[in-house]
Amino acid sequence: MNDLSQPTASIDVDDIRQAAERLKPWAHITPIMSSRTLNERCGGSVVLKCENFQRIGAFKFRGAMNALLQLEDAKRGIGVVTHSSGNHAQALALAGQLLDIPVCVVMPHTAPAIKHAATKGYGARIVSCEPTLAAREAAVANEIERHGYTLIHPFDNWQVIAGQGTVAWEFLDQAGPLDMILCPVGGGGLLAGTALAVKGRSPSTKVIGAEPKRADDAKRSLASGSIESSGDPRTIADGLRTSLGVRTFSVIRHNVDAIVTATESEILDTMRFLWERFKMIVEPSSAVAVAPVLTGTLPVRDLKVGIIISGGNVDLEPLFQALATKWLTDGE
Amino acid sequence: MNDLSQPTASIDVDDIRQAAERLKPWAHITPIMSSRTLNERCGGSVVLKCENFQRIGAFKFRGAMNALLQLEDAKRGIGVVTHSSGNHAQALALAGQLLDIPVCVVMPHTAPAIKHAATKGYGARIVSCEPTLAAREAAVANEIERHGYTLIHPFDNWQVIAGQGTVAWEFLDQAGPLDMILCPVGGGGLLAGTALAVKGRSPSTKVIGAEPKRADDAKRSLASGSIESSGDPRTIADGLRTSLGVRTFSVIRHNVDAIVTATESEILDTMRFLWERFKMIVEPSSAVAVAPVLTGTLPVRDLKVGIIISGGNVDLEPLFQALATKWLTDGE
Repeated sequence: MNDLSQPTASIDVDDIRQAAERLKPWAHITPIMSSRTLNERCGGSVVLKCENFQRIGAFKFRGAMNALLQLEDAKRGIGVVTHSSGNHAQALALAGQLLDIPVCVVMPHTAPAIKHAATKGYGARIVSCEPTLAAREAAVANEIERHGYTLIHPFDNWQVIAGQGTVAWEFLDQAGPLDMILCPVGGGGLLAGTALAVKGRSPSTKVIGAEPKRADDAKRSLASGSIESSGDPRTIADGLRTSLGVRTFSVIRHNVDAIVTATESEILDTMRFLWERFKMIVEPSSAVAVAPVLTGTLPVRDLKVGIIISGGNVDLEPLFQALATKWLTDGE
Repeated sequence: MNDLSQPTASIDVDDIRQAAERLKPWAHITPIMSSRTLNERCGGSVVLKCENFQRIGAFKFRGAMNALLQLEDAKRGIGVVTHSSGNHAQALALAGQLLDIPVCVVMPHTAPAIKHAATKGYGARIVSCEPTLAAREAAVANEIERHGYTLIHPFDNWQVIAGQGTVAWEFLDQAGPLDMILCPVGGGGLLAGTALAVKGRSPSTKVIGAEPKRADDAKRSLASGSIESSGDPRTIADGLRTSLGVRTFSVIRHNVDAIVTATESEILDTMRFLWERFKMIVEPSSAVAVAPVLTGTLPVRDLKVGIIISGGNVDLEPLFQALATKWLTDGE
């Protein structure tokens, strides 16, 4: 489902600078955080950029908003379409609501009810499809043909990539020079944007992508020199199951220093560490980027390291269901 | 277990001002937060003071540290004792570790292993006892007799109360004038300190305590004019099961405008709202103070309202156990 109609001519750090200006009235400047315990554990100085506090609870708002803010007037009235069962769906829905642009989201009927409700809550129209790539692509094509919508791809879109790059842009302003920056990589929008922002401003800063070991397609893609499929990996990091796109891969292969991986138990242990020590909700996909530092897989002794916490959207239903069962059974 | 040896002569807002100065090198200045959704829901302008980001994950560090910083040299070498299975145990243990003062904590053997481990991790010596008031008092008396320790009561101690009052002191600096301030009330240390700080600086600001409906002893105490027992209430708000002390009651009855209550289901719904919307871990005892505003039990339309989020220490073991069972069963 790569949008091959859009030329692959790249963007550069100026596009990210402009996106940062463009997003100022709309996106939150999210806080950065650190912890003594994390620094003691890894021997470095680690700063987290907390996009879990961004609107819709994830960095994805930046890319979606940056794309819609640049949509031509004629296309604004007609509307946009995307396919996503995750954060991009909510991000595009909110961006559309704020700018009064109709949004259609193609979502597999297996998507959690909570994501469906959240997307609909922002006023998007939802089209259900079978949970296969073919069904998803057919549904999107059908919506474009019928309504003339503009496709806003979740990651393989230059304006989306530029928007995601504003996280790192802001991070450098807040944290100062970094020896290394890490972020998770699924489709690669965040990593590509991060790499362009960081290498454009600070070429000596190492840019590292992190992905689940069970979905190590970015690592394999860099090794082979062409886009490898992630298959349908069974990982708790639900935002990182996707393969790279042509645009994100072209940026990542030229601007990213390495890809590191984390096992499922490392992801869970790291997520718990972040919840307990930082008292914040961090989604599994974000824990993937902290795990190599916390476990020591990636040595960072005496380095200043920035890590992007991509989001905080976790389905809390099972936890609160269990608490309700324990505490509400005997009435008030 | 009220420390009747200490005179009940009250403290005032100057003691809190001094405590704030004294704590500056030690305690975090915790952030304040707000949310469009919360404001839309209640019609007011609500600001949360996030003591879940305080050291040891709760405001209790302030009171314990303020008490230990004022301990006479001769008593420092001997050490201190307290009884707590909750946040005060960790708070005193950390304060003692930072100041090199021996700390002994009497804890019922039924206390969760995680609290036991955390307190021990800060270097405190733990004495186990039966989970009854009589056993706890006997164990503390025994430790004082044997070692000459100074008792640092979890809430019925003026230095502890002054320390807890620095939360509101800092909050007013950050948020500006407030029409109303809410905080949870268990033993009453936080509410008493808050009332002294707020009424001392801004007499027209309403000070409201919040407690579980199932542990409404503070409300009953204000109504009857003497300390009523909370009994052994079955509430998820584990920090608020205690009754008031003589010192906290004396401050609260003269400086607090009202006590409001929340049912168990309101507490749970509010806790979930805070986790989902603010992406932060908030303990049930803190949700108690937000619930009356979120549900509308306490009308706040057009008011500027400050609410103290007292802590973020929640046992995450059941949640992460469930996630591990779901995701780690088939190995890496």
